[in-house]
Amino acid sequence: MPLKIYIDFPLTPELLARLQEGARGHELIIPKKPASVLSLGDLEPSFYESDIVFGQPETQAIENAQSIKWIQVSSSGITRYDTPEFRSLMTNRGVKVSNSAHVYNEACADHALSFMLAQSRRLPQALASQAPNGSDEWLSIRSGGVPLRGQSVLILGYGAIGRRVAALLAPFDMQLTAFRRTPRGDEGMPVIGEAELPAALAAADHVLNILPDSAATKCFFNAERFAQFKPSSVFYNIGRGTTVDQDALVQALENKQLREAWLDVTDPEPLPKDHALWQQANCFITPHTAGGFQGEAATCIDHFLKNLARFESGEELLDRVI
Amino acid sequence: MPLKIYIDFPLTPELLARLQEGARGHELIIPKKPASVLSLGDLEPSFYESDIVFGQPETQAIENAQSIKWIQVSSSGITRYDTPEFRSLMTNRGVKVSNSAHVYNEACADHALSFMLAQSRRLPQALASQAPNGSDEWLSIRSGGVPLRGQSVLILGYGAIGRRVAALLAPFDMQLTAFRRTPRGDEGMPVIGEAELPAALAAADHVLNILPDSAATKCFFNAERFAQFKPSSVFYNIGRGTTVDQDALVQALENKQLREAWLDVTDPEPLPKDHALWQQANCFITPHTAGGFQGEAATCIDHFLKNLARFESGEELLDRVI
Repeated sequence: MPLKIYIDFPLTPELLARLQEGARGHELIIPKKPASVLSLGDLEPSFYESDIVFGQPETQAIENAQSIKWIQVSSSGITRYDTPEFRSLMTNRGVKVSNSAHVYNEACADHALSFMLAQSRRLPQALASQAPNGSDEWLSIRSGGVPLRGQSVLILGYGAIGRRVAALLAPFDMQLTAFRRTPRGDEGMPVIGEAELPAALAAADHVLNILPDSAATKCFFNAERFAQFKPSSVFYNIGRGTTVDQDALVQALENKQLREAWLDVTDPEPLPKDHALWQQANCFITPHTAGGFQGEAATCIDHFLKNLARFESGEELLDRVI
Repeated sequence: MPLKIYIDFPLTPELLARLQEGARGHELIIPKKPASVLSLGDLEPSFYESDIVFGQPETQAIENAQSIKWIQVSSSGITRYDTPEFRSLMTNRGVKVSNSAHVYNEACADHALSFMLAQSRRLPQALASQAPNGSDEWLSIRSGGVPLRGQSVLILGYGAIGRRVAALLAPFDMQLTAFRRTPRGDEGMPVIGEAELPAALAAADHVLNILPDSAATKCFFNAERFAQFKPSSVFYNIGRGTTVDQDALVQALENKQLREAWLDVTDPEPLPKDHALWQQANCFITPHTAGGFQGEAATCIDHFLKNLARFESGEELLDRVI
């Protein structure tokens, strides 16, 4: 049976062709101004007659669209949809919601490992140096890095990205621990809860924050938690900027409560040019590029099409979140 | 039986204590001016009565020291000792020569992977950017990187460092090929020789040069070889600068015969500040810091002491090269 699929996702002619080819037999509704990373799209009236939405639709509009049976969010983050009210409304209506975590997980995990290795190998310092062998500058770079092997890592927010990070770290024989509110027993490493967190933070050489944005995680890393870090530790954030109290992080870096911070996410984004984090020599920031890669949009469409086939045949959806 | 051990290696008081503790029962000869990365040491006359030398002794001096039974070179590179003449002299005299490859291998392999991931994740560009989400600059960084997974890597000079790189790359499911003049059958991947090299270079997404310095490898990467690269490929050098014709590399980068070069070694080192490689936006250089790490000198001494125990008991030496 042909389904009406509303595409709230920016399309080049190539991407549209890919989608049309993959969704043949269904009716695609392409709005004149779809949502982008910058803004919500302008909804067409046919939104309210669609069976499926792919993209970043507004929750308000979804609430008024009784026809929708499945929403595939085109990002990994689902902040907008992750409220008890929206979850229960969707559950009651029998609407399935999936995200595109699979599309971005590997690139995020790669980014996390690139941070850890760039830190260990002193890449920012080394790439900026023309120092001759044996000079003080050279010696401080050459012998400044601590090998990852054998060190400890605490991963906070242990989902698909964390699992992939753990797989990438396997050859380094590190001691991995996960912090997760609901341990499932399949983590393949020790899982701790809130009570054990102070001791775990005090023991970790590397603290990798992949916590999602939610009411419970807002400013999760605050002054109190940073005070629990050991001075030689390194903090990485590839989750969401809102989970960190940035003033507390600036203080912690200035007070050497931790050695370095590597952030892909901040609050807000971009971080204002006069923000104190930019002034910290031991803070390294990428502008939320962790999930991206060449061919990202095409992969996102392929992921949607894979799920469309599953939806049609009644199979369990990939990356289902509601 | 006490052995006379000549220590041609710069020592802090802590390192000296570590050495004295580990080599108890033997006579340590500590010259006033040992060799360093910058220069040869001033030899003391007792050099010519020593049983063992640890450090970077001159070949000329070794040739005149009939008492020496074992030389442990404190670096991984052994250029100075790697001549047919010196090899046959040592072999005829029954002098064993070992290097310190084990000390630096892992740090070198980490450095290689840090280069590959920094390249894939566009770290130099991303760390230098304050671009807002959705801007052209941001999009070019965010979607500019190609994930390592599934890509092909050609490793030239497949020894201990190459093996470790292969282990680190295992989770990325890459297609690995090694170039090695003498395949041993234990490489765990396809090994090619010179005849197959043009096709292998034309196929490789990543070309990792770990070739040692020798007469046979001088300017191994010349204009002809760079012309065989595919335009999307990336070249990494963590071996020796002399294996690359740098003028040819500048040309190849300017002509887009390859996408990027990541170099830890150059010829000479440091590269003069007005060298054309510094001007290439697609060339990234670290100043020969690949083998280094915190505690490197202590690890080097521990490696020597481990071999000293093996030497005393007649066991096979680690990292024996002659």
